[in-house]
Amino acid sequence: MAMPFKIQLLNTKLLNNYHYAKDFGHRFGKSTSYLIKYLLDKSKSEDLHITVGDLDIGTAIKLIDNHENATAITLDVFNKKSRADAVQNADIVISMLPARFHIEVAKDCVTYDKNMVTASYVSDEMQALDTQVKRKGLVFMNEIGVDPGIDHMSAMQVIDRIRAEGGKIILFESFTGGLVAPESDNNLWNYKFTWNPRNVVVAGQGSAAKFLQEGTYKYIPYNRLFRRTEFLEVEGFGRFEGYANRDSLKYQSIYALNDVKTLYRGTIRRVGFSRAWNVFVALGMTDDSYTIDDSENMSYRDFVNSFLAYSPTDSVELKFRHALKIDQDDVIWDKFEELDIFSPSKMVGLKKATPAQILQKILMDSWSLDETDKDMIVMYHKFGYELDGEKHQIDATMVTLGEDQTYTAMSKTVGLPVAIAALAILNKKITTPGVLRPISKEVYDPILEELKSFGIAFKEKHVPYLGYNPLNA
Amino acid sequence: MAMPFKIQLLNTKLLNNYHYAKDFGHRFGKSTSYLIKYLLDKSKSEDLHITVGDLDIGTAIKLIDNHENATAITLDVFNKKSRADAVQNADIVISMLPARFHIEVAKDCVTYDKNMVTASYVSDEMQALDTQVKRKGLVFMNEIGVDPGIDHMSAMQVIDRIRAEGGKIILFESFTGGLVAPESDNNLWNYKFTWNPRNVVVAGQGSAAKFLQEGTYKYIPYNRLFRRTEFLEVEGFGRFEGYANRDSLKYQSIYALNDVKTLYRGTIRRVGFSRAWNVFVALGMTDDSYTIDDSENMSYRDFVNSFLAYSPTDSVELKFRHALKIDQDDVIWDKFEELDIFSPSKMVGLKKATPAQILQKILMDSWSLDETDKDMIVMYHKFGYELDGEKHQIDATMVTLGEDQTYTAMSKTVGLPVAIAALAILNKKITTPGVLRPISKEVYDPILEELKSFGIAFKEKHVPYLGYNPLNA
Repeated sequence: MAMPFKIQLLNTKLLNNYHYAKDFGHRFGKSTSYLIKYLLDKSKSEDLHITVGDLDIGTAIKLIDNHENATAITLDVFNKKSRADAVQNADIVISMLPARFHIEVAKDCVTYDKNMVTASYVSDEMQALDTQVKRKGLVFMNEIGVDPGIDHMSAMQVIDRIRAEGGKIILFESFTGGLVAPESDNNLWNYKFTWNPRNVVVAGQGSAAKFLQEGTYKYIPYNRLFRRTEFLEVEGFGRFEGYANRDSLKYQSIYALNDVKTLYRGTIRRVGFSRAWNVFVALGMTDDSYTIDDSENMSYRDFVNSFLAYSPTDSVELKFRHALKIDQDDVIWDKFEELDIFSPSKMVGLKKATPAQILQKILMDSWSLDETDKDMIVMYHKFGYELDGEKHQIDATMVTLGEDQTYTAMSKTVGLPVAIAALAILNKKITTPGVLRPISKEVYDPILEELKSFGIAFKEKHVPYLGYNPLNA
Repeated sequence: MAMPFKIQLLNTKLLNNYHYAKDFGHRFGKSTSYLIKYLLDKSKSEDLHITVGDLDIGTAIKLIDNHENATAITLDVFNKKSRADAVQNADIVISMLPARFHIEVAKDCVTYDKNMVTASYVSDEMQALDTQVKRKGLVFMNEIGVDPGIDHMSAMQVIDRIRAEGGKIILFESFTGGLVAPESDNNLWNYKFTWNPRNVVVAGQGSAAKFLQEGTYKYIPYNRLFRRTEFLEVEGFGRFEGYANRDSLKYQSIYALNDVKTLYRGTIRRVGFSRAWNVFVALGMTDDSYTIDDSENMSYRDFVNSFLAYSPTDSVELKFRHALKIDQDDVIWDKFEELDIFSPSKMVGLKKATPAQILQKILMDSWSLDETDKDMIVMYHKFGYELDGEKHQIDATMVTLGEDQTYTAMSKTVGLPVAIAALAILNKKITTPGVLRPISKEVYDPILEELKSFGIAFKEKHVPYLGYNPLNA
């Protein structure tokens, strides 16, 4: 009897070293639920044995749920021996650890000749292993979750098809958002945290967002990022807005978009979110670079007031409205009241916290998912191209709804591509060696096909070429 | 015959490694003119010999102007031997090098038992020498230019006097600005570069400005820094505005302001400057963290357009006005037109330049001093205090005008305190050892007294205590 394929899964318990991490791990760290379900469901027919390693063996035990083809182990990725043992004992390693922990695992995989899969961006350190990985004939598949992941695959499938028809890509825009499902969408921001809240609070910080519009490089500083959105309409789901991601330009080389005139990647929110969010940005409440004095004993109101000028008489509310030029009847106002940020009795209660950490805490009061809430992943691609001297455009959209709080849309869209890729590598359907992204036909065609059977599918429609020309709209 | 006191002056040629540095060095690097003049004038009566070291001996030769009590030498501070020789051969070392170069000189001064004077902020590395410096009985006097320098001395003189009278300081605000003199003030911004332009362009970037207002910590993010100004009236010179410096809180410990409720330090500009400057901040044109693609071949208009949304029809002017909500008849508009930032023919001509570098170049077209232009230093302190159960306030102001482009207000207010301090240390009038700031009576009293004879003097007036209460105003 042949030995089963041994899959070592490194679980993503260590989401973040921020003090809410534990809470998030509990509530949001379920990106592996679908991944594990898929592998266990296939374990008999595909002859798999899955070992789930976690710093907390309790989590691992829970995840495998007494399945006969799975083992739970304690795994401390910082312990060299613990890590090496786990890697050595596997045919393939799936690392769902936080991105910065992949590299040590990857080095072990090189040492012990193991293939590897991650859903994270290829780091410079990871990329540096490419020569060694190729020399050993190994496959290190990265960026194969949802964003990055499904975005790569679905975009490259259309791009390659257009090219095969002789078309030239002149525009590529791509938006993704993790949102609350319409049925659970019951606050004024039309938003709840369906993933690590910290990433939402600090999104867009750092250097300016850069992209290409009709051949011109464009730059948006953080303070204007949430004021330069564009609208997206998704059939059956209504209107969304997108704000620019920081890193659009790097996709030019990854996708070989040599003739592209417009290249823009963005994040999807419901319409109105960004304009309101910009108030936090403008006041400095998303800053994560310094700590607020005596943050522990501040009320939410004190926190807001620390970003407003002193006045012995004017209310925090009026100063807030005045500073941000918010009219009394502006719909944005209700959004802030809903968050109860002017409460003099709700306490921050966090020691030496940054503004971003405090804001996160305040938002978690309002934007945490209820037990019965469901999430949603929305993706929107625009492909503009020239063919036979004419301009065309294809818009492709995908919406995935979560089933419950275990089998979320996030865990489904992240976990399934990872799992499918891991199995395809084991079965030698994906064989091209190297430190890879899922941008080749060999990879994206079978995976996208299989994702359809799980309801993850894109709707394409031909639209008039709009480009970035408002007169065309 | 006794040997003369030997003063080693390290000249400030190396202003900046930015490619305009040479130009600035030429035009603005004259901070040593007054310093050298003072020392040479005193060289006979005080028996001094001044050695001026510069990387470019031509500069040093020019500075000493064949004076019998001075020598010019080539000095490369990065050359260990060159540096050590210069230090060894001196009784006191004055370093007018850029701040980051002081530390190596300081270490040599420790090694060879030499006193030292700088006009720069005490770095952590410099502070770390304190124990050694004290053990050797040396005086390392720092922060003894204008800001820091005259601000410390003039503030501490009043603070100590109030304390001696039994008063308790509850408010301290201090503003300084390097501006163009009224007679040369002929542009719409009421501003010209009288010092390193780069520092003006990147001013306020980084972490939020922090200060205390009536007992509450207040934080202003960069994107709002230039919108939260306060007005200052200086008799005979009209109205100014001040925006917050980043570092107000550290003065609480330096000045031992234990009971202070309001602590604010700011930079002075003419009224209206900050509101207009904020447009550059809002658009991201002051960002120094990334380079603009193909910056060399951009026109000024292209540069501005890269921060505005694409449109095939709308003018850059209209997009600019719309994005910043600038009405057609807003006075701010003329300021931008005056800078010619919408010119399609003026070229940036800088390779791989950051937005900040490009903006600096554009501003230097308009804000460079003409040959006959004079500069001005303005300082404004507010001291609020309680005495016998009542609140009082003293406002102290100082304005120094430049004489010409060699003997500028900047060189006078920076150079004279440095020179006077150096002589006082040589003459054992300042003896307390350590890495110091000029905040003790031993230091500030004689120096401020002597500065008066050069026309650098403060006008004090008692005003009703205003605090930070607009109702009191």
